[in-house]
Amino acid sequence: MSPDIADQVLPQELRAQLAATVQLGPEPVSTPFTDAFPAALAEAEILISGWGCPRLTAEVLAEAPRLRAVMHAAGSVRPVVSDALWERGITVSSAADANAGPVASYTLALISLAARRTLTMASRYAEEWPSFEDRSGADGHTVGIVGASRIGRRVIAGLADADAGYRLLLSDPYITDEEAHRLGATRVGLAELCRRSDVVSVHAPLLPETTGLLDAEMLALMPDGSVLINTARGAIVDTNALTRECFSGRLEAYLDVTFPEPLPYDHPLLYMPNVLVTPHIAGAQGSEVRRLGQYAVAEVERWVAGEPLHGEVTREALPRLA
Amino acid sequence: MSPDIADQVLPQELRAQLAATVQLGPEPVSTPFTDAFPAALAEAEILISGWGCPRLTAEVLAEAPRLRAVMHAAGSVRPVVSDALWERGITVSSAADANAGPVASYTLALISLAARRTLTMASRYAEEWPSFEDRSGADGHTVGIVGASRIGRRVIAGLADADAGYRLLLSDPYITDEEAHRLGATRVGLAELCRRSDVVSVHAPLLPETTGLLDAEMLALMPDGSVLINTARGAIVDTNALTRECFSGRLEAYLDVTFPEPLPYDHPLLYMPNVLVTPHIAGAQGSEVRRLGQYAVAEVERWVAGEPLHGEVTREALPRLA
Repeated sequence: MSPDIADQVLPQELRAQLAATVQLGPEPVSTPFTDAFPAALAEAEILISGWGCPRLTAEVLAEAPRLRAVMHAAGSVRPVVSDALWERGITVSSAADANAGPVASYTLALISLAARRTLTMASRYAEEWPSFEDRSGADGHTVGIVGASRIGRRVIAGLADADAGYRLLLSDPYITDEEAHRLGATRVGLAELCRRSDVVSVHAPLLPETTGLLDAEMLALMPDGSVLINTARGAIVDTNALTRECFSGRLEAYLDVTFPEPLPYDHPLLYMPNVLVTPHIAGAQGSEVRRLGQYAVAEVERWVAGEPLHGEVTREALPRLA
Repeated sequence: MSPDIADQVLPQELRAQLAATVQLGPEPVSTPFTDAFPAALAEAEILISGWGCPRLTAEVLAEAPRLRAVMHAAGSVRPVVSDALWERGITVSSAADANAGPVASYTLALISLAARRTLTMASRYAEEWPSFEDRSGADGHTVGIVGASRIGRRVIAGLADADAGYRLLLSDPYITDEEAHRLGATRVGLAELCRRSDVVSVHAPLLPETTGLLDAEMLALMPDGSVLINTARGAIVDTNALTRECFSGRLEAYLDVTFPEPLPYDHPLLYMPNVLVTPHIAGAQGSEVRRLGQYAVAEVERWVAGEPLHGEVTREALPRLA
């Protein structure tokens, strides 16, 4: 982490809290690793890592002989982890859970807008005032959630709580009918989800199996006037196919992530009135990054107290995580 | 109500429910009143009114000698009420409470977007990818609520529930410090609210005292980069002053209502990337209008059972209602 970012993720009061439990190393280490890094690591038993932390390779770990735990104070831990970590038996924890709250809140807000076809309504404002029949309310809408990830589950919980009486569909290869039902959703295949949903929201991790998951065929199954929301990873959706569906006016879209990211400045998606493209703003940012530090500090406290970690990441689970 | 609208506000199952308690009149009456209306009213003890119902003047009421209660299945009851109603001692109930849910949900969604400066972020997408410092999270944001109306109170409750730790300011001439505190907000004057808020959301009724309440002076007090949300009534905000503040890029705005409404097709507010203007879509619409009928039916049931109404409107309260 750069010192500026570190100051927000781990502000003074969180460092003071840490200092009550462990002995703090010197000032935060900038990236990319310089000669200073291994020196700072030489004594460390616990490393709090953050955005931009390079992968903890065998070479890096060789400089950290006492390291026993890595608490990652950011949402995506995969860029940091290497096999060498597992081989050394080093414990890894991720603050993805603390990042999930902001993403889920923002996605729930987008679903509220999507249920009213807000972008389409705004884009037609100058042409005609909508009639009673043209207006869409949220009640009874079907929302399809792609991926029972931690964020997907939070979004389902938020929708199940809403008084709009949403009907919830969930597509995930690793979930059972019973588990989906417990969450308040009905498990269906992706094609059926696309066919039946007024709003489709993507919450899968980007994996080989999910790359281009929402391709031309799946998008074509979505009903006229339905809405796609992506706050997960851009490459899960086929950008060209989505561009065509939005340009025709058939679909409305809220895209916080795209592939490529960023989109080139002249990409058509950036200029469609029925599409809102934002620069990856759903995750913890600004004043919210403190949540990541807070989570990591709590993990350190649990580690020192010998309690189970809340965000432990295992070698087996890693391939399915964001 | 037109028969089409009446079918959605009071669909068959709600009429069947009503028929279990009261004797239903003939089919719903269209507006404007025709000769058919007084005939339908001649026997009525209870009238369920809706959007577009003309004012119940002394002349209309003369045709409704048995009328004792009006259950208004819409959000704004003032256009329907006349002094003649009060003079006849007719009870009036409004479904404004059932309309408040959708407005509050949609407004809370807009506040989530506003806290991330979503429109500004989207509008700058093509120019530059935001740095860490440019990004705004919701945590600790100050939200100013103008008007402790039923919708204003629901929005405050939703914000107090959110895990973002919003700081809430409330401006309303009829509320005490203690009542504001109980709601979870700090009571301040409007100028202080504008000066201190990252997001200002308008929830006052349109009255002589609130017309142009957010004028050039008040808008100028709002901090650079702050956001105005109006889902109440357009004329509460000075349209020209807001246009200037948004055009300069100083403020971001989400306007579900405007003055005039609709805005002319060439109005600058419709073409600013940092402003989202929607055609009055926050209230119950589409599948949600059934809530209004449901509320009115429940009021009829309470009335018949001799229980207190939940939405009774008094002559004294009327001038302060939407």
